[in-house]
Amino acid sequence: MKNMAPAFKFLQCFTLTLIVVFTLQQQTYAQGAATDSDAALIRKIYDRALTDGRCYPWLEHLSLNIGHRLSGSTGAEKAVAWTKSMLDTMGLDSVWLQPVMVPHWVRGEAEQVRVVGSKKYGTFNMNALALGGSVGTGAKGISAEVVEVMSWEELDNLNERGIRGKIVFYNRPMDATKIRTFEAYGGAVDQRVSGASRAAKYGAIGVLVRSITLALDDYPHTGSLRYDTAVTSIPAVAISTLAAEKLSGLLKDEGKATVFMKTGCQMLPEAPSFNVIGEIRGTERPGDVIAVGGHLDSWDVGHGAHDDGAGCTQSMDVLRILQRAGYRPRHTIRCVLFMNEENGLRGGRQYAAEAERKGEYHLAAVESDAGGFTPRGFSFDGDEAVIDKFFEKIQTLEPLFKPYGLTFTRGGSGADIGPLKGMKGLLSGYSPDSQRYFDLHHTAADTFDKVNKRELELGAASMAALVYLLDKYGL
Amino acid sequence: MKNMAPAFKFLQCFTLTLIVVFTLQQQTYAQGAATDSDAALIRKIYDRALTDGRCYPWLEHLSLNIGHRLSGSTGAEKAVAWTKSMLDTMGLDSVWLQPVMVPHWVRGEAEQVRVVGSKKYGTFNMNALALGGSVGTGAKGISAEVVEVMSWEELDNLNERGIRGKIVFYNRPMDATKIRTFEAYGGAVDQRVSGASRAAKYGAIGVLVRSITLALDDYPHTGSLRYDTAVTSIPAVAISTLAAEKLSGLLKDEGKATVFMKTGCQMLPEAPSFNVIGEIRGTERPGDVIAVGGHLDSWDVGHGAHDDGAGCTQSMDVLRILQRAGYRPRHTIRCVLFMNEENGLRGGRQYAAEAERKGEYHLAAVESDAGGFTPRGFSFDGDEAVIDKFFEKIQTLEPLFKPYGLTFTRGGSGADIGPLKGMKGLLSGYSPDSQRYFDLHHTAADTFDKVNKRELELGAASMAALVYLLDKYGL
Repeated sequence: MKNMAPAFKFLQCFTLTLIVVFTLQQQTYAQGAATDSDAALIRKIYDRALTDGRCYPWLEHLSLNIGHRLSGSTGAEKAVAWTKSMLDTMGLDSVWLQPVMVPHWVRGEAEQVRVVGSKKYGTFNMNALALGGSVGTGAKGISAEVVEVMSWEELDNLNERGIRGKIVFYNRPMDATKIRTFEAYGGAVDQRVSGASRAAKYGAIGVLVRSITLALDDYPHTGSLRYDTAVTSIPAVAISTLAAEKLSGLLKDEGKATVFMKTGCQMLPEAPSFNVIGEIRGTERPGDVIAVGGHLDSWDVGHGAHDDGAGCTQSMDVLRILQRAGYRPRHTIRCVLFMNEENGLRGGRQYAAEAERKGEYHLAAVESDAGGFTPRGFSFDGDEAVIDKFFEKIQTLEPLFKPYGLTFTRGGSGADIGPLKGMKGLLSGYSPDSQRYFDLHHTAADTFDKVNKRELELGAASMAALVYLLDKYGL
Repeated sequence: MKNMAPAFKFLQCFTLTLIVVFTLQQQTYAQGAATDSDAALIRKIYDRALTDGRCYPWLEHLSLNIGHRLSGSTGAEKAVAWTKSMLDTMGLDSVWLQPVMVPHWVRGEAEQVRVVGSKKYGTFNMNALALGGSVGTGAKGISAEVVEVMSWEELDNLNERGIRGKIVFYNRPMDATKIRTFEAYGGAVDQRVSGASRAAKYGAIGVLVRSITLALDDYPHTGSLRYDTAVTSIPAVAISTLAAEKLSGLLKDEGKATVFMKTGCQMLPEAPSFNVIGEIRGTERPGDVIAVGGHLDSWDVGHGAHDDGAGCTQSMDVLRILQRAGYRPRHTIRCVLFMNEENGLRGGRQYAAEAERKGEYHLAAVESDAGGFTPRGFSFDGDEAVIDKFFEKIQTLEPLFKPYGLTFTRGGSGADIGPLKGMKGLLSGYSPDSQRYFDLHHTAADTFDKVNKRELELGAASMAALVYLLDKYGL
């Protein structure tokens, strides 16, 4: 060795170092141990979904034959019975209904919301939907001067002096420059959720909320509010973005406006309902569960097609696709159709509580509740120790999704699977393209015709592929 | 140096090697020299497009006030005049019309295509559109037995004996398992393009072609055919996929079927038309051009909204967005709205010929002709020597698009910019999500309401960002 020329020594050392560097790199990938056979099975999963998927005809039935299905409604009851009957036909190891009590809010007669006596427009109606959970106005309705606010600061500055006896009009729009529309939604939905109580604190008698959407159109978007029990519950309605623009313009031009609103909504006693569950029992670790799901309830307008009929029928199809691809899972793979995501999350909470009680370890849970659009990726979440430890490993599987255009990120997962977080499993949210979602979200326009068959199927395939990999490699 | 312990020597060498490795890696990125200021300008471009874009209202006008615009039609004439008038308002350095003679094919009266005397269904109409360029059937129409073929091999095996005097029915579907639908289109469109002449060679008197789409519905999809001048030109029509399925089923059940078809289409003398062009003159190299475009013509049904009104209005907006972002380009940035992509490519050829004649080097050309859907990436093409040399460099810019969800691939670019390939510039095709495109392509359903505002705007922003980077860094 000592006779080697320095150049040769360097070369030798250089080569050795390269080997070290590349071996380290290889090891990272080896952790996930993704193989050619994984790629082949994933290809088979997509082929199945695209040529023999059931999610689209299932969603057609759920949308057109059952329709919307708010917790406690007959629609929800029918949806429970019908999805269970579909799972029953699939030759699963077990299908059952998990009882859960749910809030039962009803909209009542159609909302009347109008500007009265504008100089320019006279009296005109605005397209409106009461927010879910809102109290009604009483049979006579309410009428008051409107005060527009764009921020909490503005509200607080107006204070009782500016607000008492009035109707507060929240008109802060979603931020169009956010690329992921969920981020923009997150920056505006606080008005809908807590606007009523925050205005009531200053003596407001009602609120109007600009619909939480980037689209400028005439669809009002409902969605849940949360009352602060320390103040009076006042009625709250969403108005369409076009109505909001018109009202805002009128306030600028005329200085003031009077709005009449009448809603007949009320909260009835809690009602019995169910999560709908089906599973394929694991061959090696049947006590460990990988759950995949969406929420079966929807708002009481439209079909609830994207929100979240899509996620439900995709989750059902995940089990069917894995069966058809001839895959026998090591862990128990469970499809869960959660009840009451929209106005209570009772189904998600009940499911997690039961799992806890039975000691069913949830290795992973995957939720599809962002629409049935073209797949873009998965986001991964979990208890901090879990996600910190496993995200890197999960990332080694990401290249398997490259041919299908999906990427992995860290981020939120899904409302229904959130309560499982304490069980230290991995949580994942399926992330389809987000551009069209909030055009339809919680409106009469969220109908079956807005769903593209292939996009829905590609989502089911992507979820099945992830479930397969999680089952094969564990955490 | 000679007293150093071997371990220290190794460490020194290891460190040196790492420095070499990482420097090499850095250099690759340094070639593209993407900087924070690039990221900031690109952010500005997206912000502009999403809050102050014009592509959507422009497309609305083009779709609803002008409508479809096949080469030689009054629609095409109006589209030329109107898009020029819009470019004229933009304060560009130059706007002009580039004359080009185009084919002038007309559909004539509505197609009649029906199965006659089925045992099961009796006589029934099929939704059909003559293929672009097809000859008409004559006033009496034609009637003959139908023979279904799924492949060229099947056609050749049937031969004259099985085909003479008959109507050939091409029924090979697009392959649903392809993730990018353009690949599936490429595997089926040969039936539409050369089916008529290949059947005529064996004595067929007409052809029916299953619409080239993955959707199962009742929209027939037109599109151009190419006649082989060595054989008789026979009439060819596309039938909807549902009609194709019904006819195919009937042939299986009943053994045979007779079809009557009547079309009134004809080829008129060539007509004068124009490419519509506007440019911002480059500050440093005004003789070098970066072109961005789409095609202004469309088929003679629907609005030609996705194909390719979207690409035209996005290309116009690219110039406007760059102006509004305060960017002064080094090279000349030119928006080109090509005439006659659909049935002749005369505009693309004329444009390249003129550029050649004037010695205008086209550093790059970017085309948007795959619909106005959510952005997924760009594909890059060019003369072999060019693309081999520059793709690696281009890839160093890809990370700048990560926040917007775009990736770079090698592949085709666009039909209209293809003739520029010989000029040794870079060609790029904007690649939006492909799942919905062929549901609408060349049909009466390709209408403005199918376009999502944000998806269109995000496309314009993505194109503007790419044009900016190509302008800044050259090749």
